[in-house]
Amino acid sequence: MTSPASAMIVIGNEILSGRTRDANIIFIAGRLGEIGAPLKEVRIIPDIRETIIATVNELRARYDQVFTTGGIGPTHDDITASCIAEAFGVPFELHEPSARLMKEHYGTDRFMEARQRMAMMPRGASPIPNPVSVAPGFTMGNVHVMAGVPSIMQAMFHELEPKLLRGAPVRSVAWHSGELYESVIAAALGELQDRWPQIDIGSYPYHREDGRRGVALVAKGTDADALAAVSDSLRNIIETVAGVSATEGEPPA
Amino acid sequence: MTSPASAMIVIGNEILSGRTRDANIIFIAGRLGEIGAPLKEVRIIPDIRETIIATVNELRARYDQVFTTGGIGPTHDDITASCIAEAFGVPFELHEPSARLMKEHYGTDRFMEARQRMAMMPRGASPIPNPVSVAPGFTMGNVHVMAGVPSIMQAMFHELEPKLLRGAPVRSVAWHSGELYESVIAAALGELQDRWPQIDIGSYPYHREDGRRGVALVAKGTDADALAAVSDSLRNIIETVAGVSATEGEPPA
Repeated sequence: MTSPASAMIVIGNEILSGRTRDANIIFIAGRLGEIGAPLKEVRIIPDIRETIIATVNELRARYDQVFTTGGIGPTHDDITASCIAEAFGVPFELHEPSARLMKEHYGTDRFMEARQRMAMMPRGASPIPNPVSVAPGFTMGNVHVMAGVPSIMQAMFHELEPKLLRGAPVRSVAWHSGELYESVIAAALGELQDRWPQIDIGSYPYHREDGRRGVALVAKGTDADALAAVSDSLRNIIETVAGVSATEGEPPA
Repeated sequence: MTSPASAMIVIGNEILSGRTRDANIIFIAGRLGEIGAPLKEVRIIPDIRETIIATVNELRARYDQVFTTGGIGPTHDDITASCIAEAFGVPFELHEPSARLMKEHYGTDRFMEARQRMAMMPRGASPIPNPVSVAPGFTMGNVHVMAGVPSIMQAMFHELEPKLLRGAPVRSVAWHSGELYESVIAAALGELQDRWPQIDIGSYPYHREDGRRGVALVAKGTDADALAAVSDSLRNIIETVAGVSATEGEPPA
């Protein structure tokens, strides 16, 4: 089973200025792993037309599916939707069924110019329903355009999920130890990785604010048998090579 | 005063797999704004040699300074340092002063092969001291290579900061209201942005888990007089155009 490759574009000055800590990457990354279409690259870019258009065109050519978050609200800094139209070279126009839905929800009076803008899409796009606040996202070609507010993005992703490309789910095992140092097991870990190229083995030191430290060893892959063998070896490396106790799973936060 | 442009490369499968939520972007973004060298782009990429080399070469040509986080530990998945050497086309070799420092700290016996690897740098690099765990980062050309563990990255950034390119600090003002809807003020906000092109005006809806909602209006720029005028206008737009009460600052978390 092949694994479709996914990429994500986070559109928003508020992440690049340090105002906001992005909360969407970890959500989308986790969900895409579960459906077997792992995230291969993320770009965080500003609200600049040329940058958005160039980035969308580069990534939609290179990856099987692309997700964008941010920039689809009603204000002047929300330019994602019209940039997608320009990237695809199609007109940007009112999506009548979405406009009707929004008019029903807000009433004709309150469906003013600014809200109408949120019913605009590139010609040929399909709406992604928004069960939280009505104004939809949309799919254009292999690009899925979603809101930046995490609760709305997650609701849109849920609507979108049945339509996404998927592959064999990425499974994961982890072992950790508070007595472990990476340098002690580095050679054994490298040999293990060489032996199992289809499994992605990572070593992650952690340093908690309360002073707890240690190393987590994580293996990921779609081959369950190989993963089980690697899991046994990881435990063995911690207990035998390093000679310290190993606990299954990720370390507590 | 010109503003140097910065970019950041987050190197790590653990972010792309959804295992870990990155904590370094918001820190670096905030500090770079304060020293007037704002972050213009972030790329999150996997531990793959060709990808790291290509990304470093693309971004170091395009931006004044580039920051990388992650992949400089002692294990097989830590390949950033040797990729930087390859990107610059220089040998990857032991950095003697750093090796001496680490040998003093660990003792000759415990300075084994795996730890020695952490004293390897591209020829011509300058070390970035690591007051937390000794093994240094380094600067090569306009690329600053730092650890991925947040406490270590922050300590390295602190060491590095006096040497960074800087410009006029980016200042910021904010107003928010729990009674505000973006669509009501979108037109006025767009006009305000047109009038003050040197200030970056953003509108950010928020939805808290406890049900509180609202909109934050944020303006950023290096021109203090323009920023003060925009701040007055933002308050005025909330109070007069929307007719609701405005509170200065970001909304409470």
